[in-house]
Amino acid sequence: MITLASDFGSPYPAAMRGVLARESDARLHDVAHDLPRQDVRESAFWLRFALPEFPPAVHLAVVDPGVGTDRDALVVRAGEHRLVGPDNGLLVPAARALADDPPVAFAAAVGDPASATFHGRDVFAPLAAAVHEEGMTALRETGRLSRTDPVELTLPAATREGDAWRAEVLAVDDFGNAITSVPGAAIDDAARVTVDGTPAPAVRTFGAVDPGDRLVTAGSHGYVECDVREGRGDEAFGLAAGDAVRVVVERPEN
Amino acid sequence: MITLASDFGSPYPAAMRGVLARESDARLHDVAHDLPRQDVRESAFWLRFALPEFPPAVHLAVVDPGVGTDRDALVVRAGEHRLVGPDNGLLVPAARALADDPPVAFAAAVGDPASATFHGRDVFAPLAAAVHEEGMTALRETGRLSRTDPVELTLPAATREGDAWRAEVLAVDDFGNAITSVPGAAIDDAARVTVDGTPAPAVRTFGAVDPGDRLVTAGSHGYVECDVREGRGDEAFGLAAGDAVRVVVERPEN
Amino acid sequence: MITLASDFGSPYPAAMRGVLARESDARLHDVAHDLPRQDVRESAFWLRFALPEFPPAVHLAVVDPGVGTDRDALVVRAGEHRLVGPDNGLLVPAARALADDPPVAFAAAVGDPASATFHGRDVFAPLAAAVHEEGMTALRETGRLSRTDPVELTLPAATREGDAWRAEVLAVDDFGNAITSVPGAAIDDAARVTVDGTPAPAVRTFGAVDPGDRLVTAGSHGYVECDVREGRGDEAFGLAAGDAVRVVVERPEN
Repeated sequence: MITLASDFGSPYPAAMRGVLARESDARLHDVAHDLPRQDVRESAFWLRFALPEFPPAVHLAVVDPGVGTDRDALVVRAGEHRLVGPDNGLLVPAARALADDPPVAFAAAVGDPASATFHGRDVFAPLAAAVHEEGMTALRETGRLSRTDPVELTLPAATREGDAWRAEVLAVDDFGNAITSVPGAAIDDAARVTVDGTPAPAVRTFGAVDPGDRLVTAGSHGYVECDVREGRGDEAFGLAAGDAVRVVVERPEN
Repeated sequence: MITLASDFGSPYPAAMRGVLARESDARLHDVAHDLPRQDVRESAFWLRFALPEFPPAVHLAVVDPGVGTDRDALVVRAGEHRLVGPDNGLLVPAARALADDPPVAFAAAVGDPASATFHGRDVFAPLAAAVHEEGMTALRETGRLSRTDPVELTLPAATREGDAWRAEVLAVDDFGNAITSVPGAAIDDAARVTVDGTPAPAVRTFGAVDPGDRLVTAGSHGYVECDVREGRGDEAFGLAAGDAVRVVVERPEN
Repeated sequence: MITLASDFGSPYPAAMRGVLARESDARLHDVAHDLPRQDVRESAFWLRFALPEFPPAVHLAVVDPGVGTDRDALVVRAGEHRLVGPDNGLLVPAARALADDPPVAFAAAVGDPASATFHGRDVFAPLAAAVHEEGMTALRETGRLSRTDPVELTLPAATREGDAWRAEVLAVDDFGNAITSVPGAAIDDAARVTVDGTPAPAVRTFGAVDPGDRLVTAGSHGYVECDVREGRGDEAFGLAAGDAVRVVVERPEN
């Protein structure tokens, strides 16, 4: 099984699918091809969220603002999963989430690609097919892979000061939900949360507020998110990916 | 075979694909993940249109404005097809179209999902995988399924008064074609149709009018639709999904 | 293996997937369903770019502004590949690229399709499934296919006058890169290129200029393209698909 993810939109992912269908016998599953364009960090968040749902697979992911610079092609072993993509941090949070043991990274010798601008087709897809068909051991023995220290990327952690958190908006999803770096457990017994001065009830489900109303909830990624029922949380709270936020948790008085 | 449909956009469907790939051996086919957002009725129309093209399969569909309320998870048997999704009417028109015999509905015991907001991943995808792998008989014997009367949803029928129909716009498609609830046969021998006072020729194909011109035709769903050749019918006729319309059929004089 | 491409957006491609899943045992791979709407020529460019990456397959492609007119359904043999779609030129550039030998075209008898408006579902998908399951020889023997001279379509070539090229914008991709008909080799040793009076450095990779800056490069399709690093080339150069352009190549002085 090979999964595919990129910020290529359409139709460029078709060329990667073609290469993978030609050079491997793997089942292909698209993750997404509208990852936030050239935004390595928000894309890394989405991969870290989606890839752990899959069974052991080769995960090909390309968000690569540095295409054509001398960044390496990377193959990462994370438990029984393999990740293939550019060495720019994109794969790192997902790799850590995919296995208990620390992931191990290898730089791949890639020769001279046919195109200096489409490494998804010319470098990463053939490499993912080779990892799937030959396995990493064979690639290491033939010298195509060599141990490396990959470019690091850590999703920002929130810091707590009593009932307040200094945090960041990690991502805004398609529904407009603004996902912060505050851990979901922080609002387990909260009554209300104030996000940069905007208050909203802390609830378990969207159904707890009326359509059009703001809410704050522990989202499916495990983080506190700022939402509107049947509306857009990013607009109602004035938030965008990358924004610093101050989140104050108010607990019910006993 | 499992088909997937939702209003999730991207990248949330990837988490459902991952769960299905992990918990079943089924081939996966995406139907669409941009069903009209949180619009159960228009989404039900599209499922009723698309699912009958597939061979017997488990059809997973999630458009679920009531996520987190106490609505049930539903499994429906329709001939050799199985449908899995929320009990809000979404699956009902498709289930009726998939078999001659009336569909039979079961509520599923779903335990405590990991997330209160992402039942696509935590409730419906695991349930669809279980239906595929174990079958409904096994699930009934273990008590996970129990007969239920599902929430009803009937696509609105048009009513005829002589040559006039009181109808509704069931859906507007990606091309801007406005699909009404008037049966296509109503314009079999028509020369012209007037939709809320806007006249257009009744034709068999787009090629019968010039680019940019309005037309009314019996569409591929079996309903009368209001179109513009190489343009948007919804704008030219001033129609949106859910609108009530009065459609007058003019026949040629003999 | 069957690949699918169309300008249908969503959810109509699901009906084609259903037909193919019902009438064949092929693996299905989506190429794209947002090909430039009703633009046969730009769509033909994208097919010519994407399909040669795939192993031998049946390629179903539908961009069909003439649906409902008397244009034929076409099956084309190109080496071990088969192409199925409307006889409007759409398949021709890809067919030429898929094999060294000239492609051979057949018109298909299609009977009276159920719908005059959705030949993707009612004509082309069943035909692609039949080509996959029965093979072209069987279809020829039963008289369903007959040799034909297909509607021609040739992607426009650029013409050279010294260091200047009269060319055309073949396509604009999702990133805003404007792909011209000038062959990439034309700028192999160039220092600078002027496109309709707008100058830009000729470089091998996006990384050679600063973010936000214009560049001209030999793109992954083999053509000269007008780009902006982390921006939109079509806007910076004022170009759209179909535009005529004059491209002047400046070489470094020795």
